[in-house]
Amino acid sequence: MVGVIFWQGIRVSNTSSELRKRVLSGMRPTGKLHLGNYMGALYNWVRLQHEYECYFFVADWHALTTDYADPSKIKDNIQDVVLDFLAAGLDPEKSTLFIQSRVPAHAELHLAFSMITPLGWLERVPTYKDQQEQLKEKDLATYGFLGYPLLQSADILLYQPDFVPVGQDQVAHVELTREVARRFNQFYPSKTNPEVPILPEPKVLLTPSPKLPGLDGRKMSKSYGNTLGLSDPEPEIRKKIKGMVTDPARIRRTDVGNPEVCPVFDLHKVFSSAETQEKAREGCTTASIGCIECKGWLADAVVAELRPIQERRAYYEANPALVEEIITTGNEKAAARAAITMREVKTAMGLGE
Amino acid sequence: MVGVIFWQGIRVSNTSSELRKRVLSGMRPTGKLHLGNYMGALYNWVRLQHEYECYFFVADWHALTTDYADPSKIKDNIQDVVLDFLAAGLDPEKSTLFIQSRVPAHAELHLAFSMITPLGWLERVPTYKDQQEQLKEKDLATYGFLGYPLLQSADILLYQPDFVPVGQDQVAHVELTREVARRFNQFYPSKTNPEVPILPEPKVLLTPSPKLPGLDGRKMSKSYGNTLGLSDPEPEIRKKIKGMVTDPARIRRTDVGNPEVCPVFDLHKVFSSAETQEKAREGCTTASIGCIECKGWLADAVVAELRPIQERRAYYEANPALVEEIITTGNEKAAARAAITMREVKTAMGLGE
Repeated sequence: MVGVIFWQGIRVSNTSSELRKRVLSGMRPTGKLHLGNYMGALYNWVRLQHEYECYFFVADWHALTTDYADPSKIKDNIQDVVLDFLAAGLDPEKSTLFIQSRVPAHAELHLAFSMITPLGWLERVPTYKDQQEQLKEKDLATYGFLGYPLLQSADILLYQPDFVPVGQDQVAHVELTREVARRFNQFYPSKTNPEVPILPEPKVLLTPSPKLPGLDGRKMSKSYGNTLGLSDPEPEIRKKIKGMVTDPARIRRTDVGNPEVCPVFDLHKVFSSAETQEKAREGCTTASIGCIECKGWLADAVVAELRPIQERRAYYEANPALVEEIITTGNEKAAARAAITMREVKTAMGLGE
Repeated sequence: MVGVIFWQGIRVSNTSSELRKRVLSGMRPTGKLHLGNYMGALYNWVRLQHEYECYFFVADWHALTTDYADPSKIKDNIQDVVLDFLAAGLDPEKSTLFIQSRVPAHAELHLAFSMITPLGWLERVPTYKDQQEQLKEKDLATYGFLGYPLLQSADILLYQPDFVPVGQDQVAHVELTREVARRFNQFYPSKTNPEVPILPEPKVLLTPSPKLPGLDGRKMSKSYGNTLGLSDPEPEIRKKIKGMVTDPARIRRTDVGNPEVCPVFDLHKVFSSAETQEKAREGCTTASIGCIECKGWLADAVVAELRPIQERRAYYEANPALVEEIITTGNEKAAARAAITMREVKTAMGLGE
């Protein structure tokens, strides 16, 4: 795979801001996040911010590509994602946190890219037809839905990042972004230094995104209603885990179980210590513990994982003015960085200063 | 025709700015203008500014929809159109003159509209296939070319104008704009007053646009190389008119001519006084004058029309800092007006403040 780097965790943390590589990623505001969202993105982002110059944004324009006919939830969802960013540990001193629609340059670079992008490139993006199939109840034969991968390309290239941390499912979109960058650079060499392309092709930073099973054993997903929410209170977490599906062959307390087919054990692997995992495996395969006991240990681990997140969320919820200030500052920092790119882009395209 | 008003000229000129109806139109930067461009648009705009609150802009993003592969001329063309705006008599005290790409809200509203606009609406715009046919040497199967009528809709609705002064050939585009406005208003009622639509449907103000014949009798057009340029010096104007095609049946000086089939007479009708027209008609139909004499009178009229235009152009060309200031001020005024619309649009779409 071209342009893909597997991220293994923190390598360097003492390099100065000037030397640090730049990283950018975004998230659609779909409401309060669950553990699956967290492990697939935010968990990694929090760790990336020690190593990279980071830009993370709420992709609110993208919410409209599918929800244009009923945008009633978007505003609250934006606020929830902002709170979840901060709750998860994104540090506004380290990362620039902002909202896409507050930085008009996203729309401008999208418009610039629209001029050079063949319709066929967009029609062939695999998710285009897939999502139209999946979301049959919505009319997605719109100009904006066809163009959303191009909006993503603009989101990314606007910050001229070195890396885009994404999971496997987003690699194709970053590949389109690299193609758009190549085409742009081919048409529009920099006026100041034609040797250096204006829009360097960012590499994919493939972050681990464990497929977390939900309560019913299927992939954890809001649409299945099988999630553990980042904001769920402890009693709800314990109750949900207690009701989880386990190895279906372990019917009686005295039957031995097989952890490798048990969703509860899959979650142990992500959230529990090596000791607890070993204890659970041992107890299950020898029938020396019951599922309730095993689930209790998992609940302890999940609750421990969530505690600092929920404490931070409570803190920021109680301080809306602080959150507002963080986002306003982030929007301004992002807009200032975006302006550098747009100045070069416009000049190269003949739109001048 | 729905929403079309025929503009007959100035009606009221003393109404205050608050009460005046708002009007907006734009022009693609294709280089120095010719008399045909002038009579079709600027001539009318200059008169409209006494009656309406006017916004006139250079549509530089639109230049990229067809010229993305070679934007080398766009920058100079923008400057030329700005100078021609001022030369024609657009008064920066009366009209807001600005450049589209300097007001990012054009791109933002275009992106907002993309979310709600069916692909079919754009595929069915008559000029879409027509222009692809006409400009076969260019690859116009791009996302941006498909979207350019939607960008026009954004250009217009961003200023919530009452009227859009256009010639007959642009009526279909304003009709699309009205459809987009209707669809937007249907999805997104105003939060402050649901009774008043956020984007009122503008009416077409059908301005007279005489089809000026060029030197060879075909429609005056840059691509035919048959134009009289607004900036052509007097000797060039006289020389060009001297070489014009006339009634082909009038071969000898003693033959009588038919003014109704003579391109020179078509221009007399636009630029000469009633007396001169009568004198030319009389002389031609009785063979009492030759074509050279008749062309001389036309040249006098055209030169007289162009003189104040060229004097203003020379003045502004000699004062680039003044032009820069006019445009900077215009960009700021346009951006401030656009911000009013975008605030309402974003709030209604759930993107919030």
